Amino acid sequence: AATADSGIPAAGAEVAFQFLHSELVSFLLREQLQGGGGGPATVQQCRAQLSKLETMGFRVGQAYVEKMTKDLPRFRDDLEIVKFLCKDFWASLFKKQVDNLKTNHQGVYVVIDEKFSLLVPMARGKQYLDRCHLYTAFPCGLIRGALTNLGLRAIVTAEVEELPRVKFQIQLVQHSA
Amino acid sequence: AATADSGIPAAGAEVAFQFLHSELVSFLLREQLQGGGGGPATVQQCRAQLSKLETMGFRVGQAYVEKMTKDLPRFRDDLEIVKFLCKDFWASLFKKQVDNLKTNHQGVYVVIDEKFSLLVPMARGKQYLDRCHLYTAFPCGLIRGALTNLGLRAIVTAEVEELPRVKFQIQLVQHSA
Repeated sequence: AATADSGIPAAGAEVAFQFLHSELVSFLLREQLQGGGGGPATVQQCRAQLSKLETMGFRVGQAYVEKMTKDLPRFRDDLEIVKFLCKDFWASLFKKQVDNLKTNHQGVYVVIDEKFSLLVPMARGKQYLDRCHLYTAFPCGLIRGALTNLGLRAIVTAEVEELPRVKFQIQLVQHSA
Repeated sequence: AATADSGIPAAGAEVAFQFLHSELVSFLLREQLQGGGGGPATVQQCRAQLSKLETMGFRVGQAYVEKMTKDLPRFRDDLEIVKFLCKDFWASLFKKQVDNLKTNHQGVYVVIDEKFSLLVPMARGKQYLDRCHLYTAFPCGLIRGALTNLGLRAIVTAEVEELPRVKFQIQLVQHSA
């Protein structure tokens, strides 16, 4: 019934990327629960798992942006880089641009995505909420990695009040030159 | 210089999926090396890491195929399912179809991909070869999960002689009804 020529709307690799991220979070969550004997995770355990996810996100973000931008001219300034992140990077990974970008023009950027693709598979269940923000560590790393590759050091944090809406705060770290 | 309208060839989410898989393998490899005190991994350690990757692949494969096929008519037979896997599933995740599909018509299928997308990031270094097949466990799980969701139980194994060429063997398990 189905062949490659039949024009089936393919789910698309961005969905597989979502699912893989979701599995990764579940996996680290299970690992944490097993390690913790079933009780609530300690702060230290949370931090360890967050750090693993953030690191993986960072590396993926770096490699991905490297590939995306290798034939592009250099960006003029910080704002242009952040705009690239919010438009092209977002669209290519998440099939949409961000919904809102604000800046105080002093190195702080607030990025809002009303329906953040990586949180969509998790939005079905509530079991992830209050789980040490395990579900935003990877995306924060992803953004930080992308920015690092484009020459901007940043601290990236995320706030989720209701899945799958997410607010990222990007605080650029001053260059020392 | 770059905007969403400028027609930049986006790297594409399938590349992010590749990178994330690659990071996952590196992560489990590091975890194994740390756990093993730097010496060669024991068979038991290898099995544990393989099993984690295979399980994650299985879940992603199941969820992904569920999403891909939810509006499709049922498949007529096993061969049609395997063809769907080799054409549509492959094309949507890996941006190409498999290069060769053989069957003995008794439930064994051999699938060859000359340039398997998930192994491309690893094809750069040799450090992954001989590493307990860590790099094929996830794809084997992915295929097994996809087939399971379509009603076929299977044993899936992979052989890699030279990256990124891979030969998957799918052995269908007879239904007991």
